[in-house]
Amino acid sequence: MIYLDNAATTPVDKEVLEAVMPFFKENFGNPQSQHCAGRAAANAVISARDEIAGIIGCKPEEVYFVSGGTEAGNTAVKGVCAAHGKGHMIVSSIEHPAVLESAKQMTKFGFEVTFVKPDVNGIIHAEAIEKAVKKNTFFCAVMAANNEVGTVQPVKDIGKICKDNGIFYYCDCVQSAGVLPFPTDYCDALALSAHKFYGPKGIGALYIKNGSRVEGLISGGMQERGLRGGTLNAAAVIGLAEALKRTARDSERNNAYIGGLRDYFLNKVLTEIEGTRLNGDKERRVPSNANISFEGCEGQNILFLLDLNGIAVSTGSACSAGAVTPSHVLTAMGFTEERVKSAVRFTFGKYNTFEEADVTVEALKRCVAKIRNK
Amino acid sequence: MIYLDNAATTPVDKEVLEAVMPFFKENFGNPQSQHCAGRAAANAVISARDEIAGIIGCKPEEVYFVSGGTEAGNTAVKGVCAAHGKGHMIVSSIEHPAVLESAKQMTKFGFEVTFVKPDVNGIIHAEAIEKAVKKNTFFCAVMAANNEVGTVQPVKDIGKICKDNGIFYYCDCVQSAGVLPFPTDYCDALALSAHKFYGPKGIGALYIKNGSRVEGLISGGMQERGLRGGTLNAAAVIGLAEALKRTARDSERNNAYIGGLRDYFLNKVLTEIEGTRLNGDKERRVPSNANISFEGCEGQNILFLLDLNGIAVSTGSACSAGAVTPSHVLTAMGFTEERVKSAVRFTFGKYNTFEEADVTVEALKRCVAKIRNK
Repeated sequence: MIYLDNAATTPVDKEVLEAVMPFFKENFGNPQSQHCAGRAAANAVISARDEIAGIIGCKPEEVYFVSGGTEAGNTAVKGVCAAHGKGHMIVSSIEHPAVLESAKQMTKFGFEVTFVKPDVNGIIHAEAIEKAVKKNTFFCAVMAANNEVGTVQPVKDIGKICKDNGIFYYCDCVQSAGVLPFPTDYCDALALSAHKFYGPKGIGALYIKNGSRVEGLISGGMQERGLRGGTLNAAAVIGLAEALKRTARDSERNNAYIGGLRDYFLNKVLTEIEGTRLNGDKERRVPSNANISFEGCEGQNILFLLDLNGIAVSTGSACSAGAVTPSHVLTAMGFTEERVKSAVRFTFGKYNTFEEADVTVEALKRCVAKIRNK
Repeated sequence: MIYLDNAATTPVDKEVLEAVMPFFKENFGNPQSQHCAGRAAANAVISARDEIAGIIGCKPEEVYFVSGGTEAGNTAVKGVCAAHGKGHMIVSSIEHPAVLESAKQMTKFGFEVTFVKPDVNGIIHAEAIEKAVKKNTFFCAVMAANNEVGTVQPVKDIGKICKDNGIFYYCDCVQSAGVLPFPTDYCDALALSAHKFYGPKGIGALYIKNGSRVEGLISGGMQERGLRGGTLNAAAVIGLAEALKRTARDSERNNAYIGGLRDYFLNKVLTEIEGTRLNGDKERRVPSNANISFEGCEGQNILFLLDLNGIAVSTGSACSAGAVTPSHVLTAMGFTEERVKSAVRFTFGKYNTFEEADVTVEALKRCVAKIRNK
């Protein structure tokens, strides 16, 4: 299989798995328990939290472990709403469904939301955010990098506007963690999910700046300073720390390699296959992402034909896969329905090769020709 | 280490880990993805869901995967509240903090809650529930077995009252899964958590009867029929299924062994150490649990001294560990503060031996004497 869907999920690195294994058997204790078995797990969690905080650039007690990016987004939106009680929120219209749906749900409780659209290149401009600010705006969500088109957002500028206006800024870093520097200095909260960078599924981290007004989404015991109840998944936390450490350490090298590979692939597709167009800004995008529209084709059909050739791609985010509605991201960018429906997302990872890119381009030529000649 | 804290968490069985491993590396796909890597994971999840549903005694589409017992409890309480909008709830005062805290939070949104106390043996009587029913009661939570004292509740009778009054009955089965039959026929929702029966942490299942009015707690993609967003943790789901299958299969044998071991230990402690009393009903309790008060001792001190002897026990639930407030369960049972504070919970598992019980009793004698002679 040629796996070009690394934005959906990645395999767990061997070294990450090795770090995790002892916490299933020997060090299986509940980190909350007060005996030696609990302490062994708790100490490992403390080290992991320290390591993660060091990489994010925050204090260890500002790191909250959650079950993943979706829970993080829900906690940020709903938790800040619960703490504020009422008011106006600004949410980019190309956020992950976790944030979009949470914000929509909050309107049922009287909160007002302005959804800010990107430009045709998938960039949310700071000016557009500034224009949306109202007197009672208390929350803003603009992700660091989009999951469908990979566009990198001006988080520093948006962060400044939020800071100047006393607005809580949540920056979803699920797609940028380990790729771009963390925008910790410019936001009040950010999120990452281990399975996007060769760590296990079911674990994410939410950074929340000390002193922020946020209520927990999942209540229960006093785990995570009362913000998130439930037995800490020590094994997964250790896996998250190990994966993040490796990703941060190898970031420069991987970015260069993956970006070079993506550019090689993209250039070949755009020059060798007629009627192809890149979706999203050419420069301001994460190195892994190539989102391409194929004139006269349904992206869905390309996906199926490539799959028959053992090549795994997607038409949007995996979370929306199977949905009949066309991509909310490409639609927000103002594309025609035809262009939206003809889009395919290729996301490269560190295990992909130039040979795989070549094989994929050749397969694409055959698939696209087949569909167009129908 | 002698580990007598199996109600807090258990090690992952070798066979469970073996079933899980392929889903970290080879079958790492996102179950939501539409290509072969996604399908491989999705198919494994389908089989796991079928298996779990078969054991619970429900339809596969009535099983929702969540991050554990705490998220399940939060979803049940808050999700049913969100769907109903207003009204009265009945919650036993010995529920897990996940349920108690969620219910308390809901009072902020105008919901009314009656907390029903147990008798002195830790049993919540169906009559007490019936007495608490109001015209606008829409929700009731009484767990199958208590996590601190192990008392088994009359879920069938409570279920009947709820059914007769059109009340949604949530039955927390985190402590009873694989030990007692699932009360699926008597309730509208139930929860279980894999790490309580030799499965991985970070995964649980919530059964919700088809046609129930429940809203999701974590929104996002359309995973879990829209009730729970977030990338499905396929590895953990497979681990949950394997652990539940093994637990259900070995239930009779394990119950007999663990119950025999617990009785042997309990009898020795009660007869050989003066001033000891069992907390919770002697008959109606899960086989694993012995909650004992030691006159003139702080449970906390016994825990510490046993820990120095390499024996792991707890003074209550791990979720409350470290909390300065005394056990809400023992307090609700009407005990004096002295008896509450002198309680120690011993919970046995399938890997414990009679030799370990002997060693623990001897250590207990020394520890208790030491504390009492201070």
